[in-house]
Amino acid sequence: MRTSIATVSLSGSLTEKLTAAARAGFDGVEIFENDLLASPLTPEEVRARCADLGLTVDLYQPMRDIEAVPGDEFARNLRRARHKFELMRRLGADTVLVCSSVSPQAVDDDALAAEQLSRLADLARDSGIRVAYEALAWGRHVSTYDHAWRIVESAGHPALGTCLDSFHILSRGSDPKGIEDIPGEKIFFLQLADAPLLAMDVLQWSRHYRCFPGQGGFDVAGLVRHVLRTGYDGPLSLEVFNDVFRQAEAGPTAVDARRSLLVLQETVGRAALPEPVVPTGVAFAELVTPDAEPLTALLGALGFIRTARHRGKPVTLWEQGDARILVNTGPAVRRDGTQLAAIGLESPDPAAAARRAEALLAPVLPRRRAPEDAPLDAVAAPDGTELFFCATGRPDLPDWRADFEDTDPAPAPAAVRRIDHLALVQPWHHFDEAALFHRGVLGLHAQESVDVADPYGLLRSRAVTNADGSVRIALTVGAAPMDDTVHAQHIALATDDVVASARRFREAGGSLLPVPANYYDDLAARFEFADGELETYRDLGILYDRDAHGAFRHCYTRTVGRVFFELVQRDDGYRGYGAPNAPVRLAAQHAVRTLTGG
Amino acid sequence: MRTSIATVSLSGSLTEKLTAAARAGFDGVEIFENDLLASPLTPEEVRARCADLGLTVDLYQPMRDIEAVPGDEFARNLRRARHKFELMRRLGADTVLVCSSVSPQAVDDDALAAEQLSRLADLARDSGIRVAYEALAWGRHVSTYDHAWRIVESAGHPALGTCLDSFHILSRGSDPKGIEDIPGEKIFFLQLADAPLLAMDVLQWSRHYRCFPGQGGFDVAGLVRHVLRTGYDGPLSLEVFNDVFRQAEAGPTAVDARRSLLVLQETVGRAALPEPVVPTGVAFAELVTPDAEPLTALLGALGFIRTARHRGKPVTLWEQGDARILVNTGPAVRRDGTQLAAIGLESPDPAAAARRAEALLAPVLPRRRAPEDAPLDAVAAPDGTELFFCATGRPDLPDWRADFEDTDPAPAPAAVRRIDHLALVQPWHHFDEAALFHRGVLGLHAQESVDVADPYGLLRSRAVTNADGSVRIALTVGAAPMDDTVHAQHIALATDDVVASARRFREAGGSLLPVPANYYDDLAARFEFADGELETYRDLGILYDRDAHGAFRHCYTRTVGRVFFELVQRDDGYRGYGAPNAPVRLAAQHAVRTLTGG
Repeated sequence: MRTSIATVSLSGSLTEKLTAAARAGFDGVEIFENDLLASPLTPEEVRARCADLGLTVDLYQPMRDIEAVPGDEFARNLRRARHKFELMRRLGADTVLVCSSVSPQAVDDDALAAEQLSRLADLARDSGIRVAYEALAWGRHVSTYDHAWRIVESAGHPALGTCLDSFHILSRGSDPKGIEDIPGEKIFFLQLADAPLLAMDVLQWSRHYRCFPGQGGFDVAGLVRHVLRTGYDGPLSLEVFNDVFRQAEAGPTAVDARRSLLVLQETVGRAALPEPVVPTGVAFAELVTPDAEPLTALLGALGFIRTARHRGKPVTLWEQGDARILVNTGPAVRRDGTQLAAIGLESPDPAAAARRAEALLAPVLPRRRAPEDAPLDAVAAPDGTELFFCATGRPDLPDWRADFEDTDPAPAPAAVRRIDHLALVQPWHHFDEAALFHRGVLGLHAQESVDVADPYGLLRSRAVTNADGSVRIALTVGAAPMDDTVHAQHIALATDDVVASARRFREAGGSLLPVPANYYDDLAARFEFADGELETYRDLGILYDRDAHGAFRHCYTRTVGRVFFELVQRDDGYRGYGAPNAPVRLAAQHAVRTLTGG
Repeated sequence: MRTSIATVSLSGSLTEKLTAAARAGFDGVEIFENDLLASPLTPEEVRARCADLGLTVDLYQPMRDIEAVPGDEFARNLRRARHKFELMRRLGADTVLVCSSVSPQAVDDDALAAEQLSRLADLARDSGIRVAYEALAWGRHVSTYDHAWRIVESAGHPALGTCLDSFHILSRGSDPKGIEDIPGEKIFFLQLADAPLLAMDVLQWSRHYRCFPGQGGFDVAGLVRHVLRTGYDGPLSLEVFNDVFRQAEAGPTAVDARRSLLVLQETVGRAALPEPVVPTGVAFAELVTPDAEPLTALLGALGFIRTARHRGKPVTLWEQGDARILVNTGPAVRRDGTQLAAIGLESPDPAAAARRAEALLAPVLPRRRAPEDAPLDAVAAPDGTELFFCATGRPDLPDWRADFEDTDPAPAPAAVRRIDHLALVQPWHHFDEAALFHRGVLGLHAQESVDVADPYGLLRSRAVTNADGSVRIALTVGAAPMDDTVHAQHIALATDDVVASARRFREAGGSLLPVPANYYDDLAARFEFADGELETYRDLGILYDRDAHGAFRHCYTRTVGRVFFELVQRDDGYRGYGAPNAPVRLAAQHAVRTLTGG
């Protein structure tokens, strides 16, 4: 199917919008009137620009407050329409969106609405234009899609059809099944938007909180299935605007948008993408650093042993149980301090995983590898983290370990068993995009978003996981842009005995994040502990949480650059990440930073 | 009355919060439990810190999910309460807030709730503590203040009272008049918050959108009047949290908070502040600049004549009609480019205006003046703009003009008649504060906030005016922090003939902001114009708007530093500021900036 996007969905000047849409692979655009008005290009120039970029102009939008008005008002509206149809001719747009009226002048008279829309359609037909009439969820008299369709049907005009918008339909709670009663050829256009399920004024909801399909709570795919059953063969078009996208760069937003449509097309059986290949574990986490010393000292205290070095690059491998950390001191794209740069994901079929990622517009990373290296497929996540699809110790697949030569024997069975989860701070504009990426590209499941109070601002956090929890990634973002120097990425290491692991770490010279005594007084009030247990936690700075399944004990190292480590003990199927303790942890990290000036 | 603020209303560490509250002049604080948990200070140290700062600990909050639960659960709750009462003893807090339960375990049984709250109150009394029971708007079985009061009343326990929270009461649409049926001595605490009138989920509304009294849409003063009639003599306490305040600095937020309470106390007749002295006009606007040339060239082209220079400072006065612009090249606090630094407001009683501003916590500016200068009272607005209360040409008052010596004769009657309005870009965190400041301190009226789409982000704009429109200030802010280099402040100059003024400006070498031709095609579709009229507008870049009252024609100069000028013709009582044209103007300014690299 053809895909389209409304220019209002992207930020910038009209030409920036068109370029971003074309680069992301859209076939066409809806031109939002205000974007044209504010552009120095003539309509002819816009038309030529679109043609150069391979974009069709699928819709001109919107015309408002046209129908069911007194005669003199309607005469003025026709005059306005005449101007706009001439403009559309110059622009090369053959369909115009007419929204149901919100004017106080409009009357509740379907027959009058049908008659006036017919007269508008007469005028349109003379210019080779089709009129797509859409019910706004907050329309004065017409606010549901079936009502708009009844008016269109009774008008019976060949140049008059309806436009369906998933937001207006699903936000009203209308049953989209009735769409199947509309002949496909009378559905002149289909606009798609998702939205989080908020109980709020629908106009505000629409204006500020729309998002791309799959990023919100609506069953947009279900609606599209109903539309396709009618025989509709127009484009799937995105009309999405929210306060965040308005500030984001148009290029990444357009890619995000198109990815959401590809996933949607796959869901409704209209796109043949490579199957998702869900990762089955974390092969490694790669840290880049200009100075390996502080990092390797920390790894050593955590019980990691350096077991191998890369044959051709300044990268060492540190292991403990199934936790593997690469320390890279070579040139990297982002070399402004110590940070988590890449994640190796165990993949049952790395090449297929990469093919799916590429089909879903993930930037494929150049390999820049020596000829003898094992092939390693990698793409960039929206936050820039490199994701490697790889295999560890499987005879049927090239092993990334083969690029390393052993330096020390593998360590004895150790306290840290594996990487429990990775926490990645997301750029402010790309939080919803990140969740969709990890779901759509990697086939992970996205959990509910939770709010976390930092002393200096609210954070939102959302985890994506595979079915058995062997891959868990926590995505975090500020509720608004903020100084995020304290919001480091982190690697959580799973241990069966966090107390023993924390003690060993401290004995090895490691320094744990101090936790205020008041926190433990509160734990004592909320839970019952064995004798001495709480004193141990207090001594080590271990935090405690409990959910319906089990208990969670965790503690934190100091931060090196923009990375810190967490030791976690997850008992009896505890599912969370200790979110109730996050405010205490964040306050403690701020306090340490203030003390050390770091 | 005593005033108090919940620590959750301010950002930062607990000690930062306490310091900010004390500096703003609050008498006490509510200690939010999580703030204590995250603090490295012991309860005794917090108590001592409060005492040092002159703050009482008025409330410890909150205890949740206490009442109407099965016996074993309640036993655990009492155990928890015992810990907390001991903590409160150490903290020196004698009142605890208990919120109505949201637990799925809670049952709908008022008798059980009353009995269990009584048992809690028994325990509290033994520790010298009072229990204030509050209905959360989203409480499971108890969600209205009168229901909470009925339970408290039927318990009949001396250590059990109710806590009223204006948000929980007004967000539910409850009638606050019933508060008067509660004996004042049983109202143990009063929490105040305002909120914008949003139709949304009440929990989300409460968590993200509360604001200080007078900043939202609730009749908080009306509610307080009902409470005062009961004889309540506890503190007025602010419990306000929203996503913006969480990121703002605690110091200014605390001042903003206290100012809102002062205005509220005045409204309910419990504070004797100096009367507002509403400004009657704009005496001058003062621009500071490191280089006067570009600015004075612009002023000259606009028809201003330099009429005087300050006797002791490098400041010149430029006049045209009643519009007066000061150009200051001397040292100023903010010297990073050309900007609008100060506004002179005509005041019927400058000294009284300054007294009110000072009483409402506006920073009074040092005069730094020569001994012979006329006294000039000035305060700083929240955005740092200096506001001078002054008089022009009134024999009974010192005239600020007396500090200037004439250099050229006053200009002949000119096209520009006066300053129509001033547009000030606000720091992101202080938009609501700015409106409250201009209303409370200056006695201006705040109009509705409107959204304006900039190509790179949404803006919000709100005008404050006096009754006859001779003082109009438009306050603008980004919906989120953004690069605001293009969002300059501006001075709008009123003319009776914008076409003539624009022509004269251009003939004098001035450069007007070019407006796209598409905009005029749209005007032609929307309005009817006399022959040639639209061509004139198009030629000059004049924008057009119309409201129920009249028409508005306006055009813009290029930007110098962070300031530009607008020429406006306001006919037949047009009340707005051309907001529908703002997206086109902003896009044109972005385009110019891109072209010039400025």
